[in-house]
Amino acid sequence: MDYQGIIEEIAVLVEPEFGKGKVADYIPALAKVPADKFGIAVQTMDGACFQVGDAEEPFSIQSIAKVFALAQAYPVYGEALWKRVGMEPSGNPFNSLVQLEYEKGIPRNPFINAGALVITDMLIEHFPKPKTQMLDFIRELSGSDDVYYDYEVARSEREFGFTNAALVNFMKSHYNIKAPVEQVLDVYFHQCAIAMSCRKLASAFLVLANHGVLPHSGKRMLTQSQAKRINAVMLTCGFYDEAGEFAFCVGLPGKSGVGGGIVAVIPNELAIAVWSPELNEHGNSQIGIKVLERFTTMTGKSIF
Amino acid sequence: MDYQGIIEEIAVLVEPEFGKGKVADYIPALAKVPADKFGIAVQTMDGACFQVGDAEEPFSIQSIAKVFALAQAYPVYGEALWKRVGMEPSGNPFNSLVQLEYEKGIPRNPFINAGALVITDMLIEHFPKPKTQMLDFIRELSGSDDVYYDYEVARSEREFGFTNAALVNFMKSHYNIKAPVEQVLDVYFHQCAIAMSCRKLASAFLVLANHGVLPHSGKRMLTQSQAKRINAVMLTCGFYDEAGEFAFCVGLPGKSGVGGGIVAVIPNELAIAVWSPELNEHGNSQIGIKVLERFTTMTGKSIF
Amino acid sequence: MDYQGIIEEIAVLVEPEFGKGKVADYIPALAKVPADKFGIAVQTMDGACFQVGDAEEPFSIQSIAKVFALAQAYPVYGEALWKRVGMEPSGNPFNSLVQLEYEKGIPRNPFINAGALVITDMLIEHFPKPKTQMLDFIRELSGSDDVYYDYEVARSEREFGFTNAALVNFMKSHYNIKAPVEQVLDVYFHQCAIAMSCRKLASAFLVLANHGVLPHSGKRMLTQSQAKRINAVMLTCGFYDEAGEFAFCVGLPGKSGVGGGIVAVIPNELAIAVWSPELNEHGNSQIGIKVLERFTTMTGKSIF
Amino acid sequence: MDYQGIIEEIAVLVEPEFGKGKVADYIPALAKVPADKFGIAVQTMDGACFQVGDAEEPFSIQSIAKVFALAQAYPVYGEALWKRVGMEPSGNPFNSLVQLEYEKGIPRNPFINAGALVITDMLIEHFPKPKTQMLDFIRELSGSDDVYYDYEVARSEREFGFTNAALVNFMKSHYNIKAPVEQVLDVYFHQCAIAMSCRKLASAFLVLANHGVLPHSGKRMLTQSQAKRINAVMLTCGFYDEAGEFAFCVGLPGKSGVGGGIVAVIPNELAIAVWSPELNEHGNSQIGIKVLERFTTMTGKSIF
Repeated sequence: MDYQGIIEEIAVLVEPEFGKGKVADYIPALAKVPADKFGIAVQTMDGACFQVGDAEEPFSIQSIAKVFALAQAYPVYGEALWKRVGMEPSGNPFNSLVQLEYEKGIPRNPFINAGALVITDMLIEHFPKPKTQMLDFIRELSGSDDVYYDYEVARSEREFGFTNAALVNFMKSHYNIKAPVEQVLDVYFHQCAIAMSCRKLASAFLVLANHGVLPHSGKRMLTQSQAKRINAVMLTCGFYDEAGEFAFCVGLPGKSGVGGGIVAVIPNELAIAVWSPELNEHGNSQIGIKVLERFTTMTGKSIF
Repeated sequence: MDYQGIIEEIAVLVEPEFGKGKVADYIPALAKVPADKFGIAVQTMDGACFQVGDAEEPFSIQSIAKVFALAQAYPVYGEALWKRVGMEPSGNPFNSLVQLEYEKGIPRNPFINAGALVITDMLIEHFPKPKTQMLDFIRELSGSDDVYYDYEVARSEREFGFTNAALVNFMKSHYNIKAPVEQVLDVYFHQCAIAMSCRKLASAFLVLANHGVLPHSGKRMLTQSQAKRINAVMLTCGFYDEAGEFAFCVGLPGKSGVGGGIVAVIPNELAIAVWSPELNEHGNSQIGIKVLERFTTMTGKSIF
Repeated sequence: MDYQGIIEEIAVLVEPEFGKGKVADYIPALAKVPADKFGIAVQTMDGACFQVGDAEEPFSIQSIAKVFALAQAYPVYGEALWKRVGMEPSGNPFNSLVQLEYEKGIPRNPFINAGALVITDMLIEHFPKPKTQMLDFIRELSGSDDVYYDYEVARSEREFGFTNAALVNFMKSHYNIKAPVEQVLDVYFHQCAIAMSCRKLASAFLVLANHGVLPHSGKRMLTQSQAKRINAVMLTCGFYDEAGEFAFCVGLPGKSGVGGGIVAVIPNELAIAVWSPELNEHGNSQIGIKVLERFTTMTGKSIF
Repeated sequence: MDYQGIIEEIAVLVEPEFGKGKVADYIPALAKVPADKFGIAVQTMDGACFQVGDAEEPFSIQSIAKVFALAQAYPVYGEALWKRVGMEPSGNPFNSLVQLEYEKGIPRNPFINAGALVITDMLIEHFPKPKTQMLDFIRELSGSDDVYYDYEVARSEREFGFTNAALVNFMKSHYNIKAPVEQVLDVYFHQCAIAMSCRKLASAFLVLANHGVLPHSGKRMLTQSQAKRINAVMLTCGFYDEAGEFAFCVGLPGKSGVGGGIVAVIPNELAIAVWSPELNEHGNSQIGIKVLERFTTMTGKSIF
């Protein structure tokens, strides 16, 4: 069966899963997204694209943007980046202050909120227009201008963002944040509010399947080593408190967001993005996880 | 020996302790206080006052003000106050976020920073001019106008106050702060910056030795039960991570501040205040603790 | 009203509290104690005794024995005792391994299980027949032979004692236990299984109200300082996670056990023991706490 | 360059690393192993073997045996195995009781000590002669009888095994251990004391590179899914507190032991084992990690 046939069959197989999860409701702008939205896009290195459902509809990618932020900062700072953020799984729910206090303000990895806030601080230090340049970067990765900030989501994040404000202040007290607190939060909440479709997302992640080179233009964005390492961090830290289970059941590097998006990479082959807003108890897309389990089972693809 | 003879003898006995501690240096305004400042004041319920050294010189009372804040809020809110803050020792360093996260934003007691921030939020809710009215309240307790805000200290606290900003934001994310974050911090940092002398401090604490009634005017400020309970909380929670040791070695309800002040109460008899800026490893005045140990040994006074 | 009148009135007042708590059921030997057992005994320094209900019936004093163990070890080791166990409140449920791990095998205080196990180890090191000599010691304090080990309880404790075995092993890995693991557990579980009545318990605690001297014989068992310090530790650490609340509501040094016993001391005056097996959520006697609250309110006695 | 050339070159390149780590000294039997022992063995699926140094000398594989225990228990219990042990990285040093207490006696994964003790308990439940059958199982995997228990190491482990005894007792108090405490410890300490050479180790791990089938005999030992999943757990949890860094720098599923052994798997191709007793600060072989980093760099092999 080809990829189109496979994802169409999977779309039918996961139907019974609808209604088992819960759409994120910590901010009104996310709570109003219809629970039955559902799309899959597979983008291969040779330029083919396969999709089902709402795969062209932009949605709030939320924490998936943490991968883009890392990919933008890594070539700038090189391995020195890891002095300010770790690369170990957190072993705790993703907003936890405990670990951060225990480790003196150095977040465990760049995909927990604290770590992403530090990466954001590093982007602010280097890029004169961090919000604009973040968007430009993702547009270049995805080969499309159809990537934008959802300002309503950004405002909503800010309004209810006291936990993140606590994190930034706490890390600033440990001298691991350089920019003013408000600026870090502003850039970060915009980052969380990036909207793009499954199709664009899969396109943008191909750079990680292709060892740092954009397949459509041949332009190198990351060194081979950097691309490999971002994949490793996604595998060990990309799914909050469910990273081990995702590696176990799916076996691919990937990243999820509370908007219901999940994207994963099969090195040398393809990237796949799924969108379904209902979340499981770990904050990952209930159906997105099932789709990827099925996909690796049916294709026999896994890195292990 | 009378109290004057006792404190004069103690002043000589503790001389070898100078130089063993370290003046607080987390903000410049405190770091520049001379390490050899030293005063003791004993104020008895019958109006007598005994003092040695710099007992009339105002200093930054810092966390001792947390007792005044509690004493001002308690009659307003009654026992309902304890729904928003606990009364248990913290068992952790005084700024710890861990306990706060574990207990969902309810601080363990009103004398850790988190708890004092909640009390401050409650004062803001009730008093239209919280900063002015806090000062008025302490002036009434001490029977003197010589109590004021040290604005340089307040500014300095704000400038380096990221940990407290983290605490307020974190508790706001748990709905245990009602006022805007900036206002809570502003009032709180002024509270920390109150300056008054050992003599005024001892006078102001007599209300707790006298079951809630001002000895000089006969005016009731707290119910008998409230005064007793504030004493109990001081005994179990008044000395950061050294509360047990203070109860053990001194055996009196009291409160310390990082400005080097300590005040303690002997119910029905007196209040004693000491000022010596060098702090021990727990953040309590190195010499202040020794003075109080000596005082209870020489007078035979202890609540146990 | 005299003490007899007071405790009789209290016995009536607390009647509505029966049925609100839960008899300890972690071992069968305790679970079968009738929930409606209830006794109060007040023993004054001048030899008078007042009592109501089942005040002469022996019951399992459980953790109250930790005070006897401390009182037996303290004169042997002096202040060096505190090198192996702290004197700070735990701020955590009483069996917690977390604090112990964080503090490298030094228990926070002698009244959490870990601390009592260390004290037991110290008794084993010094006394050739620790079980016999513990009993002799308590009999001397209480002036009565009617103190004994309930061997069924001791066996039952051992059978379900895996948490305590974990604690001893863990502290042994940190070199804070010297005797063999099994011996420490054997002596400790017997200590927990001591049975005596409210009346004997109140008598035995008079030594702490009387600054270390047995009132009936005039024999000094502890120095004045040691007696005062044990009282201080009882006040700050005697009631598990409810120590602050007990200090707040009752305001007396005391100790509770999961057998439903509570004993408290008014320095220079009396000791009071209560027995009622139903426990509140913190593991302290539901009715025992209420009795002591009432007793301090009605007599106006409190150390604050 | 072929594998033989590569590992010979690596052996030269890592020479400057000798002396930077520290041989495990928590038990005498390990402390006496010469620090300069060093061997590498590469075993490919097609039967070729390449080796340098002490690759044929048996050493104490320690925690590497946890993979064998999991591989032996998994086919017996199937996915039900994961009800008693998790599959998430621990985010804490490998002996930590904190996480275990927080999670009510369910260890985070089978490669921390607590998890391996639960797996051991499960092996005891199923296999009548667990020690003999464990050895038989590893001999079958490695295709060699030269796998044995080092009884001196096993005795030494038991003698200093208080932390593990604490873990077993603690989990028994949470009903997650069924066999008697002493039996679980006995089997576990023997498991830690298995001795075999790099060459045998690489042979035994080929089953995980070959999707569950022994390459030399064609016998299926694990389902394809089980083999893949053990690889996933090795990648996310195989290197104590350095799992993320190993995935990042090496990018292969693997497992280390405090005896200085490390073994890793390249799916479909080979298994590689290294032995060098000096450990880094995380308890992993200082030189072993370097060898694997070089090996993946020079061969271009990584799963990402």
